[in-house]
Order: sequence, then structure tokens, then C-alpha cells
Amino acid sequence: MAYRAAVVGASGYTGAELLRLLAQHPEIEVVHVTASANVGTAVAALYPSLAPAYPSLEYQAVEPAALDGLDLVFLALPHGESQQLVPSLSGRVGHIVDLGADFRLPAASYEQWYGEAHRAPEQLDSFAYGLPELFRTSNEQVPNIAAPGCYPTAAALALGPLVAHGMVAPTGIVVDAASGVSGRGRGLSAPSLYSEANENVSAYGLLTHRHTGEIEHALSRLHGDDVEVLFTPHLVPMTRGLLATCYARPARDGLTTADVLGALHDSFDQEPFVVVSEEPPATKATLGSNSAHVTARVDPRTGTVLALGAIDNLVKGASGQAIQAVNHVLDLPEPTGLSALGLMP
Amino acid sequence: MAYRAAVVGASGYTGAELLRLLAQHPEIEVVHVTASANVGTAVAALYPSLAPAYPSLEYQAVEPAALDGLDLVFLALPHGESQQLVPSLSGRVGHIVDLGADFRLPAASYEQWYGEAHRAPEQLDSFAYGLPELFRTSNEQVPNIAAPGCYPTAAALALGPLVAHGMVAPTGIVVDAASGVSGRGRGLSAPSLYSEANENVSAYGLLTHRHTGEIEHALSRLHGDDVEVLFTPHLVPMTRGLLATCYARPARDGLTTADVLGALHDSFDQEPFVVVSEEPPATKATLGSNSAHVTARVDPRTGTVLALGAIDNLVKGASGQAIQAVNHVLDLPEPTGLSALGLMP
Amino acid sequence: MAYRAAVVGASGYTGAELLRLLAQHPEIEVVHVTASANVGTAVAALYPSLAPAYPSLEYQAVEPAALDGLDLVFLALPHGESQQLVPSLSGRVGHIVDLGADFRLPAASYEQWYGEAHRAPEQLDSFAYGLPELFRTSNEQVPNIAAPGCYPTAAALALGPLVAHGMVAPTGIVVDAASGVSGRGRGLSAPSLYSEANENVSAYGLLTHRHTGEIEHALSRLHGDDVEVLFTPHLVPMTRGLLATCYARPARDGLTTADVLGALHDSFDQEPFVVVSEEPPATKATLGSNSAHVTARVDPRTGTVLALGAIDNLVKGASGQAIQAVNHVLDLPEPTGLSALGLMP
Amino acid sequence: MAYRAAVVGASGYTGAELLRLLAQHPEIEVVHVTASANVGTAVAALYPSLAPAYPSLEYQAVEPAALDGLDLVFLALPHGESQQLVPSLSGRVGHIVDLGADFRLPAASYEQWYGEAHRAPEQLDSFAYGLPELFRTSNEQVPNIAAPGCYPTAAALALGPLVAHGMVAPTGIVVDAASGVSGRGRGLSAPSLYSEANENVSAYGLLTHRHTGEIEHALSRLHGDDVEVLFTPHLVPMTRGLLATCYARPARDGLTTADVLGALHDSFDQEPFVVVSEEPPATKATLGSNSAHVTARVDPRTGTVLALGAIDNLVKGASGQAIQAVNHVLDLPEPTGLSALGLMP
Repeated sequence: MAYRAAVVGASGYTGAELLRLLAQHPEIEVVHVTASANVGTAVAALYPSLAPAYPSLEYQAVEPAALDGLDLVFLALPHGESQQLVPSLSGRVGHIVDLGADFRLPAASYEQWYGEAHRAPEQLDSFAYGLPELFRTSNEQVPNIAAPGCYPTAAALALGPLVAHGMVAPTGIVVDAASGVSGRGRGLSAPSLYSEANENVSAYGLLTHRHTGEIEHALSRLHGDDVEVLFTPHLVPMTRGLLATCYARPARDGLTTADVLGALHDSFDQEPFVVVSEEPPATKATLGSNSAHVTARVDPRTGTVLALGAIDNLVKGASGQAIQAVNHVLDLPEPTGLSALGLMP
Repeated sequence: MAYRAAVVGASGYTGAELLRLLAQHPEIEVVHVTASANVGTAVAALYPSLAPAYPSLEYQAVEPAALDGLDLVFLALPHGESQQLVPSLSGRVGHIVDLGADFRLPAASYEQWYGEAHRAPEQLDSFAYGLPELFRTSNEQVPNIAAPGCYPTAAALALGPLVAHGMVAPTGIVVDAASGVSGRGRGLSAPSLYSEANENVSAYGLLTHRHTGEIEHALSRLHGDDVEVLFTPHLVPMTRGLLATCYARPARDGLTTADVLGALHDSFDQEPFVVVSEEPPATKATLGSNSAHVTARVDPRTGTVLALGAIDNLVKGASGQAIQAVNHVLDLPEPTGLSALGLMP
Repeated sequence: MAYRAAVVGASGYTGAELLRLLAQHPEIEVVHVTASANVGTAVAALYPSLAPAYPSLEYQAVEPAALDGLDLVFLALPHGESQQLVPSLSGRVGHIVDLGADFRLPAASYEQWYGEAHRAPEQLDSFAYGLPELFRTSNEQVPNIAAPGCYPTAAALALGPLVAHGMVAPTGIVVDAASGVSGRGRGLSAPSLYSEANENVSAYGLLTHRHTGEIEHALSRLHGDDVEVLFTPHLVPMTRGLLATCYARPARDGLTTADVLGALHDSFDQEPFVVVSEEPPATKATLGSNSAHVTARVDPRTGTVLALGAIDNLVKGASGQAIQAVNHVLDLPEPTGLSALGLMP
Repeated sequence: MAYRAAVVGASGYTGAELLRLLAQHPEIEVVHVTASANVGTAVAALYPSLAPAYPSLEYQAVEPAALDGLDLVFLALPHGESQQLVPSLSGRVGHIVDLGADFRLPAASYEQWYGEAHRAPEQLDSFAYGLPELFRTSNEQVPNIAAPGCYPTAAALALGPLVAHGMVAPTGIVVDAASGVSGRGRGLSAPSLYSEANENVSAYGLLTHRHTGEIEHALSRLHGDDVEVLFTPHLVPMTRGLLATCYARPARDGLTTADVLGALHDSFDQEPFVVVSEEPPATKATLGSNSAHVTARVDPRTGTVLALGAIDNLVKGASGQAIQAVNHVLDLPEPTGLSALGLMP
């Protein structure tokens, strides 16, 4: 295979999903995996689902020297750890792909939403925001990739074309979203327990969830000026899947459902991983796939634009989209190694 | 026991839930049950969960004459059927309790949202909207009860006090809600299948769900003038539980989270079935109980009021609240026979 | 109320379930709760589902002196802790009810299955095995209660009458069972995570699960001689519910399904908490209730007796049955404060 | 692509799964799909998950003439329909692949378990039982494939090597198995409803499930003489996944866990789709994949052999295995177009 890759933080869910997807990629070979708590354990022992592809690969401790000369280094680390590691990797590996939040925002915005100064602001310009359908053309010549967050991906794909076409007002936007429990990762905490999460829906992070900043930043780039969003995430009892239901006000009189659906079609009909539908999208249509399904409506009665986007939070919302962006950087066809078909039922 | 009751339509989920709850009610005895498709079947055969309480009761065909003289007749029927049955029951039974949508709205509003003229408009005044916490005092002297819908119950309990206190603007309100699959009833349809609903979240009824009219009507009564709501329901993979996440604009400058929480406390601290919490409410805290859990926030950054309400859609959202309203009509303590404690985990 | 009670270990799931059930018990009042990791936290904060009943009760550290003089002390502790606490409580409280495994087995059997010597063997005789339907009469004059384990309860109720009637051979018995995830408790561990347990079935504890010894002990008491059992538990993706599917060989030629169903009816038709059914029992029929549903078959083709039992693992399999046994000890009607009706759907 | 295929009955779950898998197969193109109730509907409308691969394909009515000359015809039909269709296809298409039960058993055994005479017994010899790992070599020169049932696949893979090596006695075998709800198909019935299946485990088809005959037939072929099995299936609350927990008696003294694990390793270590593990297999490790995970134990205490097998019922238990068998017939590498990696979490 053409490219040799490492996955740093491969014992968590986004890391394991990278391993699953890369095993099916014809041009990328995973040669090194690291973990913090499972050093010496076989990937196949922690994830028997991956045994057929990785019969003997074992987790190593993180050593930047061990990554020297690799073509690709994927970072699937807890918030804040990538910015400590990237300076020691920069220039020693081909491309860094960060699946965390460390390189998605400008330094000031990062500090606002994450409550602390960025530790490697000089590296920010070397990372492109890896949401190809909306930011592909502006990413040329940037070597590294900041893979978007799950909620921002769904919200930006649903609302982005409407914002970019000037169809919705930049204030008063509400993103109300629901995510499966895998979005909380593999860490042990009471809300992640089956007996707590099952048969349960609740909102969390009211008014202050950190993805708010990323949603606003992505939409603001498309709008060309500041966009303001209130974001309310919910935890729902399923493993994977994320639905963003977005509310905005029309930017002009007479806007119709045909207009907003037309904007989605214009933006996405040539995209292999976005399905624009007349019907409300279902997260299950995206299960295990790199697809997003989106729709939109205009309600003249209340003067509201409604836009909905569904994804698999671990694929299009994390590891799959990261690989899609890598394919773009490597000049491979974007769909290489990725499936657009959901597992249904 | 003091009161003899029938449940008409007792093979569906709200009917079965009435049977479960009434079995534990010390003053009401179920002496007659009807069903359309299961005549001659034992309740215990269709619902083995109820076998200990109803070892021999069998479903009968609906015969108004068989209900003559009963103290209470609960109607748990598909939309549109109650308005055909009520005229023949009126005056022949003590109290009619309709769990359907037929007697919740004024005739004009009913026609607007249900797409057909009401068939028994002369009966509408004999029904009080059975949401005791918000409309108890205005229901005196009305013999019959229209039990509220599940979504309107959650939305009205969360938003109602804020509307009643004039804290939020009457337009631009969004109610974004999620319900478990039992809300679709026991009827056979593809979206109700386990393999379709599991691991799946989707919105439905975009812009036009019929509960919109009921939410608007309830809030308008509290506001004293028209309130306009955009309502988006979602189906989530759980059996019971309903969460309404509501967005509104403050009606005045400087409104704070303390103000809106205060309004909820003022309205509900003496209520046995409403818990006002600082934390976002979880549907699971209400499982199997007649409680609603609510909270609210004000976001000065975006100028938004957020109000959330969680219930069990089959208890507080249907059968439990119906019994609570009956207790009020019968001058029994409202909690009689009802539990406020959720099944957790 | 007549009796004052403490729940030691009330932050776990069986402890919380005791609080839920005791709140509805007319003769027992919970006046004291302890926890190890949540001292100072309000019950209502950890379990908002219980807020209406315990608005101000807080978890205390375990102090035997604080329990002095109480009528009832429920112990819902991790394995091994009760035997350290009981000697200091004995004689100072009315009745001790242990929901753990410490006082269910004779000392030798305990050591065999738990791998260490019992630390308070002199206390074993003061505990009766609290499975009233099978051992009620032999429990007279024993002050304390060892509440049975969840798997042994389901297996013993399904197989016990057949063993007691000499219908099945005492060797070659297989108990194949499935439990919801709440059976693992509230402790944090990877297999208890939603994302690991959901959409997943697996066996665990192959050949060596500790409940094997308890199942054998209970059945041996009924048989009057040693009974040998192979037990295989499975974890299934649901919160509550436990089904035991048991296989045995007929002890005599010509045994029929009518015979084994007859034995179940003889044993249980007068019991308020056992439903003997013709149909295979469903765990959901028992959800939140103290009922067990059982059936049995004889297969002449393969020479096998099949017996099935379904319960809610936290109610009949733990806290509910403990209260039922307490009611018996206190000479209250056994159903006092307990519901036999399952939450369905 | 080299081969042109039709899927007859492509609106059900096994048919839709064929479409998902074949879309990723480099040598087979689906050119025709039929359905009974959805004629004229687009595949993409019924299964939005498949929209990216089948943007315009529509369901047709079944017309044998329309299948003339195709290389492959997959039949995913309700029980009994294939035997009516096959005679009209025989000789007109390259290979018929039946995913139903019609061509898995000899005529006499079919009549015994299905309760009616086979309508096309003369066609039985043209079908090979498509479980490659166990029957690959005996299938040469047989043009058509009878894809095995889901339960028989899991049971035969777990027990087959032990039976073939003469390690277990041919009588007294118990197969206790659990399946996700998708095994019931897409048909509308109350037990398939989310609200009935969720949070519920129950056994069904006690003593008489039709897969018993198929399990016995497969094991008898491996044993060389009659094998007798008692089979108890259970429905568990998950969409996909199937676990068979099998009990047998050792055929000789001194049999050890090392012996039975060794037999599994001997049979499967070269197979791309079977993982032999020391740990109990979890269905989730196989989700969406064509893999089976198996293990075995010997319990000297009770004299029992335990063998467990986990699969995805729609892939290795149906559509994936059918494609694997087709690959073998077409002399393609068996893994062509199939993934061995499970979706985890």
C-alpha cells in the first residue's frame, strides 16, 4: 500500500473506528497504534470485532520518535492532548489528522469556549478544517487536517448551504440536536452506563456546550460574517447516530421550501456522501456509513426555516470524514475505502 | 369501592395503562372493558402483566347500553371515535373521561388542525381540559374530562408558567420534542417496528403535527391572547418517555434564569406531581410515574429562554393525568392511586 | 408508621429500588440511608426519580451506632461487606435483611464458590433464605433474612416445584439465563457501558458463576439430596428483566407437560406473586413488579423437561422479594406495599 | 462487472441486506429487483440507506421471464414460495440462491418440520447447503445454493467440529439461542413492535421450532449418523445479532477444554470468516460483518460440553453467507465483497 499510518489513541471509539475503516482502505496501511491505558494489549483482544484485520497488532505507548517518517498520523486523543503532541510531530510526518477539538478554532475562539489559552497557536495555520463538502476548495496547500466535531458536521451540512446562499438570518439560530451514547467515548462515567442511558432522553450542556463555538465558526465562514447560534445537545438511547434539527429565520420575504431544498441540491447533488431528501432524515439510514442525509423546510405560518441533518457520529461525524479529508489531501478519490450505505435494519 | 368504571378501548396502550393504574386505585373499580379487535379475549391473555389484577376480565364489544349507570367511562379510542360515542353516553354515566383528541380544542381549532368538522360540537362545553396544575380552578362544575395530549402536557408544564407570568414573547416559540415509540400506540405500522425504530432518531410531522394546535390553545389560555408555536416532534428509540425542549424570546429585558426558575417554583412547589429542578430533566426519572420534571434557563448571549419538561407519555402524558383529573372531579386527593416515583434504573 | 428502617448502601441500584418500594409501604419508614461514595449527597440529587418521596434525605457514612434500635436494617452492599458488618449489628436492631450473597449459603459451600472462608459463620443460622414461595414454612423463628440472588430466584421458582415433586433427575440440569444490565449494578466498568452492552448478547462466567452454588443449594433443599446444575448466564441489552430457561431430564417415564404444569399450579396458584402460564413467560410482563411468571414443558422426543421463569431482577430478584420476606417476618400480609403488575409496554 | 443478478423479494430485510452487500461486490451487479407489496417504489424510497448505490432502481413484480439469462437469481421470499418459483427458473438462469428454507432439507425431513409435502422435490438435488466452512468440499458440481438459516449457522459452526471429531454424544444436545428482532423480518406483527420487543426477553417456538430439523440435519451430516437436538430460541431486544449456546455430553472420558478449542482451531484457523476465541463471543463483535465468533468449554464437574457461536443473523446468518457461497461457486475468492469486521461500538 502507498501510505503508512499510525493511530495515536486507538483504544477509544474514534480510534477503533479509524482502524475498522482503514482496514478497508486500499492505499493506507496502519502500522502503529498507541494507547494510554492498554499498552501491550492486542487490538484484537480489546476489539474482537477487529480481530480478522489486526490479528497481532498491539498498542504501544506514545513515543513521537516511533512515528518518525510515517505518511499519516491520526490523533484520536482527549481534548487538549493533541496540542501538546503536534509540535513534536510537525515536519517529521507527512500529514497529521487531528480528530479532537484542538485545531478547529482560531486561538481566541478556542480560549473563549474551552476556557484556557491554546498551547500551540503557531500550529493552527497548518490545519485545514476537514469538512470537504463545505470547505474543500479553501483547504489547498494546508498539510494537516482538523477533523470536525460530530454536532458541527451535522449542523453545518444542514444549515451551511442556506447560510452561504444568504437565505437565513445570522442571529436567532437554534440547533437542537440528539446524539447516541458513543459520542461520550469509551471513558467510564455514570451517564454512559447502559442502565442510566437506556430508556432515557435528556439535554446536557445547556447554553454552554463547546461545540457551539465550532458551529458558529463554520457557519460564519460560510456567511462571511458573524453567525450566532444557541445549541442544545441531547443524549438519546442509541449507540450511534446524530440528528441536528435547526431553526432559523428567513433572511428575506417569500422564501419557500423549494428554495431551501434547491440550495441543498445545488450544494450536494454531486457529493458522494450527502443525500438530500424530501422526507425527514433518519439517523439509521447513515449507520456505519460516511453519509449525511439532509432536508429543509420553510414554515410561512411562523416565519421559520427548518433544516435537518443526520449522520453516524463516529463515521461522518469523526473517523470517516477524517479519512475522506485525507483522501482529498492525498489526491485520491474522496470515497476511497469509505461506504456511503447505511446498515439497515 | 366507591366508583364503578369502564374502559372503552382497553386493548391499546393507554387503555392498558388505565387498567394498570386503576388496579391500584382504592376508590375506583374497573367492571367493564371493551375492545374492537379482541372481543372475547381475556385481558390477562393480551397483557400477562395485568394477570394478577384481572384474572378473568374479558374484552367486550362496545355497547353504550352496557355502560349505563356507571360512575366513570374512560374512552381510549383512535382519533375521531369519541365524538361519535359521547352523545349516546351523555347523561347516562357519571363522568366521561376522553383520552383522545376529540374534546380538547374549540370546534374551529379542531377543524383547522384535524381537517374535518367536529361531529359533536354541542358536547365540547361539557369537557374540561384535564391538566390540573395549570387549569384546575377553571374546571369547576364541568362533568367530563378531556385528558391532554402527551406533547402538550410536557410543553405546557415547562412553558406555561413563563407564559402566564408574561415572561416570554407570544410569537417565535419553538417546541422541539422527543417521544418514545409507545406514543404511536399498539397499531401495526412499519415505523413502529423494533427493527425500524431501534437505533434511530428522526423528526416527523414537520410543520403540521396536530398537537401544535393543542399546545397553542393551552398556552393562549394562559397568556390571555394568541400564542404561536412551531412544533417539531421526534421519534427516539425508547418505549416510554417524552422530553419537550422549548425555545422562546424574553418578553422583557434583563430576564434571568433565576426569574424563570422562580416562576416554575411558584407554580409547582405545592404540586405533588411536578419536580422543578436545577438540572436538565431526564425522562427516565419519570418512568412509570405521574410526575413531570421541569427546568428553565435564560441565555443572555443569544436572547433566548429555554424551558424543558420530561414526562412518561403514557402516565402523566395520558392515563395517569386522566386519573389525576378524575380524582379532582371526584373530590378525592389528587394523588390517590398514583405514584410520583419513577422506576430507576 | 409502625417500623423504622435504614438502608445501608442506598446509592446502588438495589438500594435505590428499596427506597422506591419502601416509599410506597404503609408500615415501614426509611429514616436513615448510607453510602460509601456519596456521603452528604441528597438522595433526590442522585436519584431525581425519588425526589417526591425523599426531598431532603441525605446519604450518611456507615456507622453501626447510628443504626441502634432500628426495627429493620437493609444491607445492599458489595459482596463480602455484610459479613463484616452483621456481627456489630446483631442484637442491636430488630431484623437484618441482607441483599448480598453473604448469608445465603452454608459456610463450606460459601467457601467453595466464593473462594474464601466466611468471616461470620456463627451468624449464618440467624438468617433465613428469603424466597417465601418455596421456603416460607421453614423460616419461622429466624430473625434475619438473606434475600436470594436474582438468577437463583428465577431458576428455583421455575424448577423448584418439579424438583420437590421428584419429577426431574437431580443431575444433568442446565440453567441457561439472561439478565438485563442493571444486574451488574451501578459500578463503573466497560461491560456496563451503553455502547458496549447495547445491541449485544454474550455469555459470561462460563462454568463458574457463583450463583451456581446458590441454585444448587436451593434445589437440593427441595430435593432432599444433592442437585447438580450447570449454569450459564448471559448479558442482554435491556435494563431490567431476567429469564431462566432450564433443562432437566424426567425422573420417570411418561412424564407429561400436564404433569409439570400441574406441579407449578399446585405450588403457586395461591401465591400473589407467581403467575403460571401456558405461554412462554416474557420478562417485560414483570417489569417493575414483584411477580414471577413461569411455565414448563416435557419434550418426549428428546427426553427433556423445560422450565422457564421470568422476573424483574431488581424487584422479585432483589429488593421486592426482600420486602416480601420482611412482611412475612413482621406478620404483615406479604403483598403489603408491593405491586404484582408489570409496566407494559 | 462479470455477473448480472436479480434479487427476488428485495423489499424485506434479507433482500435489502443483499442489496447493501452486492453494491460493494466488484464482480456482481444487481440489475433487477422484485417485491410483492412495493411494486413501482424506488429502492431508495423504501431504504434511504441504499440511496447512494441505487438512485433509480425500482421494485418490479415477479416475472420469471424477466429473469431469463441472468447469471444469478437470489430468492429472499417467505417460506414456501421459492419451491413454487424454482421449477420455472431452472435452466434459464445461471445459479439460483435461495435464502429461504425450501431447499435446505431432504423431502421427508422438510415434511416433518414444515408440516406439508415439498412441492418441487425433484429440484432438491440441484441445491447445495451453502455453509462453506463445513460443507464446502461436498458442494462441487451443484449449481444452486440453499443458504442456511440463521440459528443453524451459529449452532453448526459452534458444534459442528466437535460433532465431526466425535467429541460429543449425538443425543441430549441442547441448543439455546437468542436472536435480534430483525430475524422476524419486516412483516407487521405485534411481537415485532418496538414497544413489545424492547426491554423484553422471551422464548418462543418451544420444542417445535422448524430450525430444529435443519440443525439436526447439518450435524447429522457431520456425524455420519442421526443427531438429536432440543432447540429453544429466544427473542432479545436488539436489531441484529444471534448467539447460540450449545450443551452436549462428552463422547469420551477425559475430554478437555483444550481438546474442544483445538478442534475449533483445526477447523477454522484458515477460514477468513470464523474467529475462534478464548473468551465468550459477543454478537456485537460481528455486527454488519460476515464473521462468526466461536468458543467451547468442557465442564468436568457436570460432564458437559459447552459450545458458543455468535453471528449477525442478516449477514453470516443470511445474505452474507449466501454471497460467500456464491463466490465459491463462481470460483471467486470467498471474501470478495464481504467484510469480516464488525461495527463496534
